[in-house]
Amino acid sequence: MGTKGDQTRDAILEGALRLSSRVGLEGLSIGMLAEELELSKSGLFAHFGSKEALQLRTLEYAVERFTELVVRPALTSAPRGEPRLRALFEGFLRWPETIPQPGGCVFVAAAVEFDDRPGPVHDRLREYWKARLAFFAGAVRKTIDEGHFRRDVDPEQFAFQVDGITLAYHFAARLLGDAKAGAHARAAFEALVAGARGPHR
Amino acid sequence: MGTKGDQTRDAILEGALRLSSRVGLEGLSIGMLAEELELSKSGLFAHFGSKEALQLRTLEYAVERFTELVVRPALTSAPRGEPRLRALFEGFLRWPETIPQPGGCVFVAAAVEFDDRPGPVHDRLREYWKARLAFFAGAVRKTIDEGHFRRDVDPEQFAFQVDGITLAYHFAARLLGDAKAGAHARAAFEALVAGARGPHR
Repeated sequence: MGTKGDQTRDAILEGALRLSSRVGLEGLSIGMLAEELELSKSGLFAHFGSKEALQLRTLEYAVERFTELVVRPALTSAPRGEPRLRALFEGFLRWPETIPQPGGCVFVAAAVEFDDRPGPVHDRLREYWKARLAFFAGAVRKTIDEGHFRRDVDPEQFAFQVDGITLAYHFAARLLGDAKAGAHARAAFEALVAGARGPHR
Repeated sequence: MGTKGDQTRDAILEGALRLSSRVGLEGLSIGMLAEELELSKSGLFAHFGSKEALQLRTLEYAVERFTELVVRPALTSAPRGEPRLRALFEGFLRWPETIPQPGGCVFVAAAVEFDDRPGPVHDRLREYWKARLAFFAGAVRKTIDEGHFRRDVDPEQFAFQVDGITLAYHFAARLLGDAKAGAHARAAFEALVAGARGPHR
């Protein structure tokens, strides 16, 4: 339940996210966004102040939506341990289609653009990516604590491999249009889970 | 042993590859390349004819170099089967540092840019990426034939997972500056290999 101002703000940021999915976060500009949304450029400029502020706000909006639409549902709908890990994995996989990102996951696009561009956008993106890996590693740790995974499973290693599966899926589904991408991603995750389970399960 | 003309051509394409690693293949232009290499724009234009031709030629050059510096050494230096698979994996992992790509792997950058831009660059990139996956799957098939891997290993699935490991490595090493990226990538590959080995090995 937002106010009308919130709704306008969300519509603008959703448009910015949609656009940066297509042209990249670096390609995003206030002028282009004004054209896309048929709003006045001066109004948007007054609101954001600079291209960098628009980039940062768009990235922040993507992080908020990811938290709200991927992380929170997994935490509330699935019990701790392996079920929650599965829910998180499915959420990660589906994220690029969860909100309109016609050019693919904005975090992947931004990572390619900003890995060699020092500055606040790079720092924020890096912080988000690290937090996402750490969060997934934490969920693996809880799966160990629940007794679903063996004690010697390395949570960081597991999170790294899940990151790889979602990235391979993203490229296979989008660039290659590979109809088996989802099946390959899920089989890879199942193998990872099977390898981490306790011997006495 | 190339002629002087070949050397000039290679120097131009190497410059184009270096530049497109930083600004993207879509960001690459004849004007920018002329500036980078301190050559005349009209000369480069006469040579390439269009921005798209430059993009295609740069992509082709990257594929040639990948074949020459990653694929061929693995084929000639490592025996068929698991050793060759290992050599290929190491080559895939090190590729972004094998020739100057200061902004990271040009194929990854181009995949993000061109997955939603139909046209010849998209088609060539997709063809290359598919061929790379198919080539790796073929090497897995030979590893099965050599008796190093079990008969029920799925070569396409294996290749998909290796793709994921190299992608996760690329993002962890570059965006996150993660000192453990290489160790995580190699441990993931070892787990994959261990899971594919015959029970009687």
